[in-house]
Amino acid sequence: MSLRNRLTEFFGIDHPIVLAPMAQASGGRLAAAVTQAGGLGLLGGGYGDADWVQREFDAAGDARVGCGFITWSLARAPEVLDVALNRKPAAIMLSFGDPEPFAGSIRDAGVPLICQVQTLEQAHAALRAGANVVVAQGAEAGGHGMSTRSTMTFVPAVVDLVAEHSPGTFVLAAGGIADGRGVAAALALGADGVLVGTRFWASSEALVSPSAHERVIRASGEDTIRTRVYDLVRQLDWPAQYDERALHNAFLQSWHGDESHLLANLPEAVAAFQAGLSAADFDIAHILIGEAVGLIHDVVPAGAIVAQMAQDATRILNRG
Amino acid sequence: MSLRNRLTEFFGIDHPIVLAPMAQASGGRLAAAVTQAGGLGLLGGGYGDADWVQREFDAAGDARVGCGFITWSLARAPEVLDVALNRKPAAIMLSFGDPEPFAGSIRDAGVPLICQVQTLEQAHAALRAGANVVVAQGAEAGGHGMSTRSTMTFVPAVVDLVAEHSPGTFVLAAGGIADGRGVAAALALGADGVLVGTRFWASSEALVSPSAHERVIRASGEDTIRTRVYDLVRQLDWPAQYDERALHNAFLQSWHGDESHLLANLPEAVAAFQAGLSAADFDIAHILIGEAVGLIHDVVPAGAIVAQMAQDATRILNRG
Repeated sequence: MSLRNRLTEFFGIDHPIVLAPMAQASGGRLAAAVTQAGGLGLLGGGYGDADWVQREFDAAGDARVGCGFITWSLARAPEVLDVALNRKPAAIMLSFGDPEPFAGSIRDAGVPLICQVQTLEQAHAALRAGANVVVAQGAEAGGHGMSTRSTMTFVPAVVDLVAEHSPGTFVLAAGGIADGRGVAAALALGADGVLVGTRFWASSEALVSPSAHERVIRASGEDTIRTRVYDLVRQLDWPAQYDERALHNAFLQSWHGDESHLLANLPEAVAAFQAGLSAADFDIAHILIGEAVGLIHDVVPAGAIVAQMAQDATRILNRG
Repeated sequence: MSLRNRLTEFFGIDHPIVLAPMAQASGGRLAAAVTQAGGLGLLGGGYGDADWVQREFDAAGDARVGCGFITWSLARAPEVLDVALNRKPAAIMLSFGDPEPFAGSIRDAGVPLICQVQTLEQAHAALRAGANVVVAQGAEAGGHGMSTRSTMTFVPAVVDLVAEHSPGTFVLAAGGIADGRGVAAALALGADGVLVGTRFWASSEALVSPSAHERVIRASGEDTIRTRVYDLVRQLDWPAQYDERALHNAFLQSWHGDESHLLANLPEAVAAFQAGLSAADFDIAHILIGEAVGLIHDVVPAGAIVAQMAQDATRILNRG
């Protein structure tokens, strides 16, 4: 028995488990480890830095991996997409913005397009752009997203929408999935597979500092919060509908909910943030992590995570 | 094959599906219909009105049903608990407040105690009170709750907590469960069963006006919002940590996010609300409904809902 399905067949993988392309954290070693364990690794191309993308494709070696980008940022440096496409990626994933301007060149390169969405209207837009895979992301997820929907209801709603309008498109569930129970639940909701961030963030291969790992394995799911504070002090001009889930800390305690005061004192807050970042002081610096953090108690190799998730989910879904 | 497990054995029911005791909406006919279909019906005792509780126990006839209360409100009229206990209920469910003061008389009456929780600390308190069942409620749920946690991560976290501290206690998942996919997902997450509100709210037996039903079956999951506005205009002194999920409408458009202005104009807002309520004008009056509303497209008998949920969940969890 296994979790093999139409998604694993499409990508030629063993388990319907995809690494979320976490900006900076999902490097080549992590993506390769997920692929080598039978899942699909995606590099965290993030805002679009050509050198980073080249380096991390190199780090992935022979492993077949894809790459994700932040769509609105990629639109400012579209040439980085070509850097990724030249590496013959297993897929390109676009999140947070209109995928349409990039869909043509991805399709022409024969590369599968994965679009992450947070609303039903965005799901329609992904289908219009010809996405092969739609990722339905709930607000449980770490990092950027929207506070609007939760995985438990958003995934089946997207599954129904896709079944009606584009039944050949696959659906991945994202947000709150950190173990085999979550994988089984996502498949039960009708998803073809899962996109997993936080659990792989807490893996040996993630590009994450040991002190950040140390904080996270002690945290509860009630220690995370959706906020815009870190986008403000990083002076990233994210569209207003997006926020991000981060581990709560003293810096958020000071500023979250008091954003107008933060903006009135931005230079001082930015300086304090940058000092904290340089010192790897996570009372100040950000750890972008999902609500599933409470289910994670250790940092282990990504391959072991994939294997355990697949084994547990298979058992749960084959009770008969 | 069936979904029978230790929970169904404990309650002597066929399916691990429990009707949420929705204040006013979960009357005797609905609770009886859920029980007669093999689930467990709970009356929505709500704020604690002895006459309502007597009448709806009568309406349930011979069917074995339980009753739920809003704990902080019950503390102001504790005699209503005795009204319910005198009817030999299948269970008493307490939500939103400290269950400890009531646990003794419930236990002494030989009645199972179900405690609904929204945080891990509340789950510990439920175990200290000797709860037989802990309901882990995510923010997807309709009506009152907290915005803190989502079903996808909160349920396995509570399952782990209960397994460590009180393995004989059952866990129900609540929030976002409206069909067999949701039931299967909740069981996959480790819950012993589910507490279902919104789907039964949209049933033939619910004490809900046809025009409210009509609005809800047309709504999307993106049409609901967690708010305190209706508690303010109903002048209910809910503890500050609780809010409620309601269907978005013109009244919320006016006041949600502008609560200080609402409080400064409370008499006028209350008058407008009460006029809307009297006229059953749901552009003004409240419909307390969960995010799962987008998965509901019809109003059908509760018995058919139970049967379909159980059948679909059984199929999903027995793929082998």
